[in-house]
Amino acid sequence: MTYSQAILNGDRLALSRLLTQVENDTPESRMALIELFPHTGKAHIIGVTGAPGTGKSSLVNQLALQYRKAEKKRVAIIAVDPSSPFTGGAVLGDRVRMRDLYGDVGIFIRSTATRGSLGGLAKSTANMAQIFDAAGFDLIIIETVGAGQSEVDVARLAHTTLVVEAPGLGDDIQAIKAGILEIADILVINKADHIGVEMTEKALKSMLELAHPAARIFQHHGAAMQAAAPPQKLPAAPLWIPPIQRTIATEGKGIAELAESIARHAAHLTHSGDWAARERTRIEMELDLLIREELISRFRQTLPQNHYEKLLTQIIQREISPGETVKLLLDGRRK
Amino acid sequence: MTYSQAILNGDRLALSRLLTQVENDTPESRMALIELFPHTGKAHIIGVTGAPGTGKSSLVNQLALQYRKAEKKRVAIIAVDPSSPFTGGAVLGDRVRMRDLYGDVGIFIRSTATRGSLGGLAKSTANMAQIFDAAGFDLIIIETVGAGQSEVDVARLAHTTLVVEAPGLGDDIQAIKAGILEIADILVINKADHIGVEMTEKALKSMLELAHPAARIFQHHGAAMQAAAPPQKLPAAPLWIPPIQRTIATEGKGIAELAESIARHAAHLTHSGDWAARERTRIEMELDLLIREELISRFRQTLPQNHYEKLLTQIIQREISPGETVKLLLDGRRK
Repeated sequence: MTYSQAILNGDRLALSRLLTQVENDTPESRMALIELFPHTGKAHIIGVTGAPGTGKSSLVNQLALQYRKAEKKRVAIIAVDPSSPFTGGAVLGDRVRMRDLYGDVGIFIRSTATRGSLGGLAKSTANMAQIFDAAGFDLIIIETVGAGQSEVDVARLAHTTLVVEAPGLGDDIQAIKAGILEIADILVINKADHIGVEMTEKALKSMLELAHPAARIFQHHGAAMQAAAPPQKLPAAPLWIPPIQRTIATEGKGIAELAESIARHAAHLTHSGDWAARERTRIEMELDLLIREELISRFRQTLPQNHYEKLLTQIIQREISPGETVKLLLDGRRK
Repeated sequence: MTYSQAILNGDRLALSRLLTQVENDTPESRMALIELFPHTGKAHIIGVTGAPGTGKSSLVNQLALQYRKAEKKRVAIIAVDPSSPFTGGAVLGDRVRMRDLYGDVGIFIRSTATRGSLGGLAKSTANMAQIFDAAGFDLIIIETVGAGQSEVDVARLAHTTLVVEAPGLGDDIQAIKAGILEIADILVINKADHIGVEMTEKALKSMLELAHPAARIFQHHGAAMQAAAPPQKLPAAPLWIPPIQRTIATEGKGIAELAESIARHAAHLTHSGDWAARERTRIEMELDLLIREELISRFRQTLPQNHYEKLLTQIIQREISPGETVKLLLDGRRK
């Protein structure tokens, strides 16, 4: 039986093995991705990102439990982990971080730590999400640590992106907020029992106002903003203002409300036609990634190794610039 | 006068303008990079990375001041900022974060927030570093927020990479440490007056032992490890064990010791032949980035737009997989 048949039959071991194949980008995984592709497009992909120390892992854990208990949905978690292989970070992560969720067949947790080439992580994460989608998982949660370019790229794979903050994370937080506000559909202040939660919320609100002038509407609602009045009930156009949700993941507080907020966002995407637009963006980005990887791989195959090495040495000796070298390599190839 | 002539003459305004051109990847900047390339290869490039909330900006600020005051060196700072343009993050960053350094012509501070394509940030940062190098700056400090793939890529541009930690940054920190230990040449525990500093140092030491079994040698030295005995005086091979340096950047404490540690690392690189090896890696990575960007740009130019759009629609309708599409696009082109 092929991987794709086994996965469509609900074989968890085959699923686990195929995910490893995808990480290693094997010919088997490429074949399976082609075969499984017609079965994709049904899952709701949720991205969860934010700075370290915000308690994202606990939050994702609780959110998955909520979906299992309250809605009987099947949930896959992809924890994108910058750990290195020598400490076994990714494997350890699977076991330690999501302890509560073990033994539930409706939940599948996978850490991934693919490094290597630029774009490699985003590509393998996109492919893993596709496999979970074909395998019939209703929700796919992609969790990323950090707030760098790769996290933003991974977030682009999601239909709904949660940006998690926590009170009192220091002076760099402003810079990060500014960058990730653009990708946030829902802002979460986790550890909402910590000192400084009011200040964090105030700062987020000010930044939201800058980004979405319509956010002022919510200014006088106070707590109502937290509960996020469904935007589709507003008289104006279907504009989505990222709501701010407070949670205390370690105590399971605010999780049900967060799940509701996510459901409202999904409904908004469907009603406004944004779901289709995001699907298009997602797929375009995926295609772009695949094209880039294929271009460089084909280029490498056609390249005589000693020619490349010779040029590299010339660059190091400052005889030729990298820009000129690229021209030589690419134009030379065409002759 | 061309940009490159002006820059070799020490024109700061031209330098500033060229950096903007580099961010926008203009033809002028490509020309200048080619012209300036023979003048590069002299600067010591220092990467500073780590989690948000560790006080990296203050540390970089203090380090630059140290180099100016104690060693009269010219220092350039590239603050790689994930801020978005609508909040003016990068511009604001220039003004607010490095207040102490203004008015000193031996210091040039530049924030950069280039987003867009994968690899775009690493490419433009590499190019900016080259321009500072040609302009005669002795030290180029590249500061990155976060610990994602892009930060690791930027760190690869550096001769010496500092990974900054701070006590008590929460549960995600272990995962991050594991990932960045591989790229760290020097570990800095900033905010060393905060509670939990001993625990942070203990955790870092354990991880170092895992990564570098030779680090055990230093275990019995206690405080001596902090001061990092010069590895070149050890009887064994010239192996570099990342020293752990404590700092309190806001009070300027530990900065001189950190600068010494950086100097020792530079000496180690030279003596062991690693400097040349890193130069080669740096240049190879840069070349790889440029080749990727050029390949995709040339591919786009040869692509009939409606063909691409048609295939994209077919993917969205699940008639063809992204993998098959790439084959069609690339093989079709060759016929």
